Amino acid sequence: MAKRITVAVDANGADLGPSEVAAGAAVAAARGTRVLIFGPAQEIGEVPDGVEVVDAPVSIAKASDSARAARSTPESSIVQAAKAVACGDADALVSGGSTGTALAAGLFNIRRAAGIYRPALAIPMPIPGSPALLLDVGANVEVRSEYLVQFAFMGVAFSRAVLGIACPRVGLLSNGSEPTKGTPLVIEAHNQLSTLMAGAPDLEFIGNIEGNDVTAGVADVVVMDGFTGNVTLKVMEGSLATMLKAIGDVSKGSLRDRAGGLLLAPGIRELRDELDPETTGGAYMLGLRRLGVVTHGRFTRRGFARAIELAERGVREDLVGRTHAALEAAGALRSSPSGDGSSVDA
Amino acid sequence: MAKRITVAVDANGADLGPSEVAAGAAVAAARGTRVLIFGPAQEIGEVPDGVEVVDAPVSIAKASDSARAARSTPESSIVQAAKAVACGDADALVSGGSTGTALAAGLFNIRRAAGIYRPALAIPMPIPGSPALLLDVGANVEVRSEYLVQFAFMGVAFSRAVLGIACPRVGLLSNGSEPTKGTPLVIEAHNQLSTLMAGAPDLEFIGNIEGNDVTAGVADVVVMDGFTGNVTLKVMEGSLATMLKAIGDVSKGSLRDRAGGLLLAPGIRELRDELDPETTGGAYMLGLRRLGVVTHGRFTRRGFARAIELAERGVREDLVGRTHAALEAAGALRSSPSGDGSSVDA
Repeated sequence: MAKRITVAVDANGADLGPSEVAAGAAVAAARGTRVLIFGPAQEIGEVPDGVEVVDAPVSIAKASDSARAARSTPESSIVQAAKAVACGDADALVSGGSTGTALAAGLFNIRRAAGIYRPALAIPMPIPGSPALLLDVGANVEVRSEYLVQFAFMGVAFSRAVLGIACPRVGLLSNGSEPTKGTPLVIEAHNQLSTLMAGAPDLEFIGNIEGNDVTAGVADVVVMDGFTGNVTLKVMEGSLATMLKAIGDVSKGSLRDRAGGLLLAPGIRELRDELDPETTGGAYMLGLRRLGVVTHGRFTRRGFARAIELAERGVREDLVGRTHAALEAAGALRSSPSGDGSSVDA
Repeated sequence: MAKRITVAVDANGADLGPSEVAAGAAVAAARGTRVLIFGPAQEIGEVPDGVEVVDAPVSIAKASDSARAARSTPESSIVQAAKAVACGDADALVSGGSTGTALAAGLFNIRRAAGIYRPALAIPMPIPGSPALLLDVGANVEVRSEYLVQFAFMGVAFSRAVLGIACPRVGLLSNGSEPTKGTPLVIEAHNQLSTLMAGAPDLEFIGNIEGNDVTAGVADVVVMDGFTGNVTLKVMEGSLATMLKAIGDVSKGSLRDRAGGLLLAPGIRELRDELDPETTGGAYMLGLRRLGVVTHGRFTRRGFARAIELAERGVREDLVGRTHAALEAAGALRSSPSGDGSSVDA
C-alpha cells in the first residue's frame, strides 16, 4: 500500500471561516489523505475524522507587510503549517490566507528547491474547452531570462504530474509570435527555451504566443514574468465576468430575451461552474522543496477539498523530484547556492 | 463656416481591398470630410463624390521589416499618405495597413510633436457599459516612467477631445492597487503622475488599477507600457471571443438550450455589435504632429468611415494642440530635441 500522504492546511484567512476549511479537509480525509489543520481550535469546533487540529489562533493572513509578518510571527498558523512541512511532519502545504503571506512563509521555512532561482505561482485556468497553466502569476515582478526558462520546466512538470497532460505544449507570452518580438528579456528567454527544450522528448516548445492565444487552446503551459502574469490573469477574470454579466443583462431585456434567458439558464450555470476557480484548487507555489497551494479567500469547502486533493497528487507523483530531474536533464539548474530568497514580491 | 478638414487615407492593406476603403471614404465624404485616398486607382474603380484618389499602387502593408520598408519605399501608398499629412495637404492620417508600417511611416514623415518622448498607440475598448481607452498597446515595448506620464496626458486629451469625456479618470495598470505595487518603473510613474496630475482640474488620477478593473469601468484611460498593453488588449479580445463562443456552444446543446439560444440570438447579436472594434475606428497614434488612425485589416466600410470620422473630430477639436497645452501646464514636456525616434517597436 502506498504511503499515506499528509497535507498541512492553514485554516486562517478564509472568508467563510476556519470551519469551512475544516469541512473541506474532512472531504479530503474521507478520500484517504491525512490532514493537519493549523488554526483556531475553538472556531473549528468538532474535528472531522481523519483530520488533526493544531491550535494556532494567530493569523497573519491580512498582514500588510507579508514578508515581515512571516518572519516575525512564528506562532502564526501559516508559519506553523509551513514549518510542519519543512520538518517533514507534512508533505505539502495548503493555505487559505493571502498569497503574499503564504509565499513568504513557504520561502522562509520550506525554502527553495536546490538549483531553483525563484519559486513561481502557477494557476491552472479553467478556460472552456482549452485549460492552460499560467505562470508566473505574481511571485516575481521582475525576472531574468533564466527564471523564465525554469518556470517553463516547472510548469511542464506540474502539467504532467498533477494535471495529467502527457506532452505539454509550452508557449512564451509575448507581443508577437515571431522570435524577434518582445522585450529583450523575452527574446533572450525564447532563444534559451528553443535550445534547451529542443532535446526534450515529452514536451513541445511552440515559441511565442500572443494574448489572444492564451484562451485559444494552443498551449498547455504559458510562461511570463509575474507582473505580466498577474495582469493577464486578472484581465482574463475581469473579461469573463464582464461577459457573463453582459449576457445576464441581455436576458433581462424584452419578454423574448427573458424567455430565452430562462431556457438557457441551466446551460449558462454549467458554464459558470466550469469557469469556477474552485475546480482547480487555487494557485500553486512551484520551486520550493515541497509543493504549496494558495486557495482563494472566497472558496467554499469544495475548493479547499480540491486544493488538498491536488496537493496530495503532487506529492504522490513526486512533482518536486520530477521538476528537478527535468531541469537537470536540460542543464537549466542554478549551479551556485541561492541565498535566502527574500526578494519574492507578492 | 468651419474649415473643411482633409483626411489622407492609405487604401492598401485592407482585407476587403481598396474599394471597400473607398466605400468607407464615401460615407465620410458625404458627411462633409474631404478624403484623399492613396492606393491603386485601378482597383478602386469609380471614385465617389467628395473623394480624391492619388494613384499609389505600391503597398508595404505586409512588409516584415516595417521601419525599413517605410524608409526605403517613398512611392508606397502609406508613405505618400503620411507625407501628404506632413506637408499640410491633409490634416490627419488613416491607414488600412499594418500597425508597424503605419507607425513607422507616421514617425518618419509626420514626426513626433514637440516635447513628446515617444508616440503611443491608444485603443478605445468597447467594453459593455464601461468603455476605456488603453495606451500604449504596442508602439513601445520598453518605456521609461516619463513616457508613461506623457501617455497618461495624451490619453486624457484624446478621451476628452474625441470621446467626449469631460473629466477622464486615469488608472495606471499594475499588479496591485497600492502605490508600492508594480515594477520599479510603474512605481516611479505612479509617483510622478500623483504629483503632476494633482493640480489638474479636469481629470482624476485614481492610482494603480489591476487587470480586472480594466473591464469594470473604474477608469476612462488606462496607462501601461506597450508590451503589457499588447498582451492586455489581446487577452481581453481572446477572453471575450472565447466567452461568446462558449455561450454559442451552450445554445447548441439540448432542445431547451437551442430554443433559449434562438430566443436570445438577437440580444447576443447586439452585444456582439457593441463589442465590435469597428465602432471605435481602430488604434490611434498619439504624440505625432498630426493625428493618425490605424484601422484593423478586417474592417468593412463601416469601420473605415468611423476611423475617418474620429480622425476628423480629432483635428476639429485640436487634439494635438490640447495635448501639448496639457503637458506644458503639467511641466511634463520633454525639454531637449528628440532625435529621429527610430526606436518604435511595433
